[in-house]
Amino acid sequence: MTVSKAFTVVPDGTITTPQGFRAGGLHCGLKKTERYDLGVIVCDVPAEAAGVYTLNAFQAAPLRVTQKSIAVDGKLQVMLVNSGNANACTGQQGEDDAYAMRLAAAKAFGAAEHHVGVTSTGVIGELLPMPKVLGGIEKLPAQVKLDGGEDFCQAILTTDLVQKMTCVSVTVGGKKVHIAGAAKGSGMIHPNMATMLGFMTTDANIESAQLQKLLSAVTDSTFNMITVDGDTSTNDMVVVMASGKAEHEPLTPDHPDWAAFEAGFRYVGEYLAKAIARDGEGATKLIEVNVAGAESQEAARAIAKTVIGSSLVKSACFGADANWGRIIAAVGRAGYPVNTETVDIRLGDITVLEQSRPVKFDEDRAEAYLKTELVQIYVDLHMGDVTATAWGCDLTYDYVRINAAYRT
Amino acid sequence: MTVSKAFTVVPDGTITTPQGFRAGGLHCGLKKTERYDLGVIVCDVPAEAAGVYTLNAFQAAPLRVTQKSIAVDGKLQVMLVNSGNANACTGQQGEDDAYAMRLAAAKAFGAAEHHVGVTSTGVIGELLPMPKVLGGIEKLPAQVKLDGGEDFCQAILTTDLVQKMTCVSVTVGGKKVHIAGAAKGSGMIHPNMATMLGFMTTDANIESAQLQKLLSAVTDSTFNMITVDGDTSTNDMVVVMASGKAEHEPLTPDHPDWAAFEAGFRYVGEYLAKAIARDGEGATKLIEVNVAGAESQEAARAIAKTVIGSSLVKSACFGADANWGRIIAAVGRAGYPVNTETVDIRLGDITVLEQSRPVKFDEDRAEAYLKTELVQIYVDLHMGDVTATAWGCDLTYDYVRINAAYRT
Repeated sequence: MTVSKAFTVVPDGTITTPQGFRAGGLHCGLKKTERYDLGVIVCDVPAEAAGVYTLNAFQAAPLRVTQKSIAVDGKLQVMLVNSGNANACTGQQGEDDAYAMRLAAAKAFGAAEHHVGVTSTGVIGELLPMPKVLGGIEKLPAQVKLDGGEDFCQAILTTDLVQKMTCVSVTVGGKKVHIAGAAKGSGMIHPNMATMLGFMTTDANIESAQLQKLLSAVTDSTFNMITVDGDTSTNDMVVVMASGKAEHEPLTPDHPDWAAFEAGFRYVGEYLAKAIARDGEGATKLIEVNVAGAESQEAARAIAKTVIGSSLVKSACFGADANWGRIIAAVGRAGYPVNTETVDIRLGDITVLEQSRPVKFDEDRAEAYLKTELVQIYVDLHMGDVTATAWGCDLTYDYVRINAAYRT
Repeated sequence: MTVSKAFTVVPDGTITTPQGFRAGGLHCGLKKTERYDLGVIVCDVPAEAAGVYTLNAFQAAPLRVTQKSIAVDGKLQVMLVNSGNANACTGQQGEDDAYAMRLAAAKAFGAAEHHVGVTSTGVIGELLPMPKVLGGIEKLPAQVKLDGGEDFCQAILTTDLVQKMTCVSVTVGGKKVHIAGAAKGSGMIHPNMATMLGFMTTDANIESAQLQKLLSAVTDSTFNMITVDGDTSTNDMVVVMASGKAEHEPLTPDHPDWAAFEAGFRYVGEYLAKAIARDGEGATKLIEVNVAGAESQEAARAIAKTVIGSSLVKSACFGADANWGRIIAAVGRAGYPVNTETVDIRLGDITVLEQSRPVKFDEDRAEAYLKTELVQIYVDLHMGDVTATAWGCDLTYDYVRINAAYRT
């Protein structure tokens, strides 16, 4: 992605760069080490809010609570998150615990209960140690600060290796507007939300309903186009909060600066999605699959996601093996009609298949390319003009190591 | 599976145990080592035949040729197979080569050209070195023998570690009938055929059309219920040949011994399917997922396949980690409605979830169980009475090692 002139990346920007937001984190005892495991984003005012949630049938309790909060009047003022325990598959007690977290956060921050969102990430099926969580919430207001974005980022990590955040600015009605985001990965990651939490903040003036439409559309081509291991989590969600502090005319698609805002918003979504894929469990590189020439958006996306999800393609990228046979095999099993005579495949700028025929290529150059940290695979079906892009990572020894003993 | 009294397993039985069949193998130069890479099954007479083929859009050339052969009069006398090169995605030249193999085998064995089937397994997208292949075919008749079943099994292996074959006998109309099978795995294995070749022989008297119906039905609950890595190959196929040498009345579903024959046939299919899963690339154990209480066959199979296909479940089995949260997360993303309050999960006889609530269990006993070579996962949805079983293997360091450098 090239950075459009519609927006500017803010160096060192975090989720508290947009006006009206503070954040913080602390260790309350859910993680075995002293790392932060409880975090919060707080807005000075009830912010316009929107969310997207996992499609897994076993949606975790806190997601249902957050949805209920937003449903009341489309606003959130406090977004609370814990890591180390997913509060998923925990039955009525889990739901009661999620409501108790919401109530405690509302009291601690002086917000209305329905202006509090809660979410959790970590091990599935274990009850939250509520005394630790509630004790942490009480101490949280003292940790919240204007430059607390990094603390918040630390608090949401599980097996992630790096913090994932970005911020851009755009001009709306002559006012400077910020759009920022933070996210965590990094396993059980697959389209339809992943074990992925995304938090976006903006000081734009935009209503909840507009924000929801924009978030849903952007999610479809960003967060829902990444996969680490094909497993869709019970806890995935992306929430966006808009403080309105930039004080421009309300943003709608009719606003002259809508396109700039949308571009900045999409950049933040794509940045976070790619950062999650790159930091997938055990990953050594980011893989990007670009499908062109498809007949429909569904086909383009399904094929891109099937290629990026193939364990064989992922292993080959780890081993820097230009095994395009695995790519075409994945294209062929994606469930959409393919003209088997017209497929081109490129690895970076190295053509390996043209009109479905193998092309002689320099194996050494291909190997060198596959050893880089960003591998771009291009598949052109030559059937239509629809494109899609998906992101993922290689499958490595470390993925197996991490997942062979996650709980222990 | 318990062995029913309807049939008896023949100790050391191979695909040449059924009357009328011989087989053989040799090294023609497709594999870098001296291992066999060309094999053949020959019947004394044109045998009634049936086949099932990959659903991958990029079906390899030899599969199309075999389909055309069987389409003529439902018979095969010679089944030729090479390993080391898949002859897939090789365009018109690949198709010409497959026909050339068929012609050469017809000449070598004195069979009609349309009574020859050909198939290939190995690397995708490279042209067959035809002089080696044709030279091998010329020498093949001298290698064919009554006890050549093991030689044939060697010739079809790629990354497989063990030969996979079995034979049973059943009584049909007072005559002893044999049903035998041989198969290869072991990567790019997923429902809808895998990089999997299955060969079955029988001396039963049964017409091609009946054989096809039986093979298709049995494939749906055996070969199509295994997964190693979720990748569906371009070359998968299962072919069955019936010599009729047992000389009983033709078998149809109305025959009093049909049930016994069907049970024996299903046993061979399931035996081979499980053997392929157990010998999946890098596998240390066989994993069996049993789903009960589903509302439909589609739901039961989809859920069983989603659980067995989960990289996280597979990694947890490798690490002997009783992480049932990953199992229920897979159940929840299989794409079928689930009652989130009524799910039971057992690992062997250890209940870990009851009515969707975690059950306290002995972690040491669970770890010991997960370290065994056969892990059986039971999921009861309590929604209906339909069941399904799927098989797979654990995800290990060796899977990554094997697939990070398969071509090189």
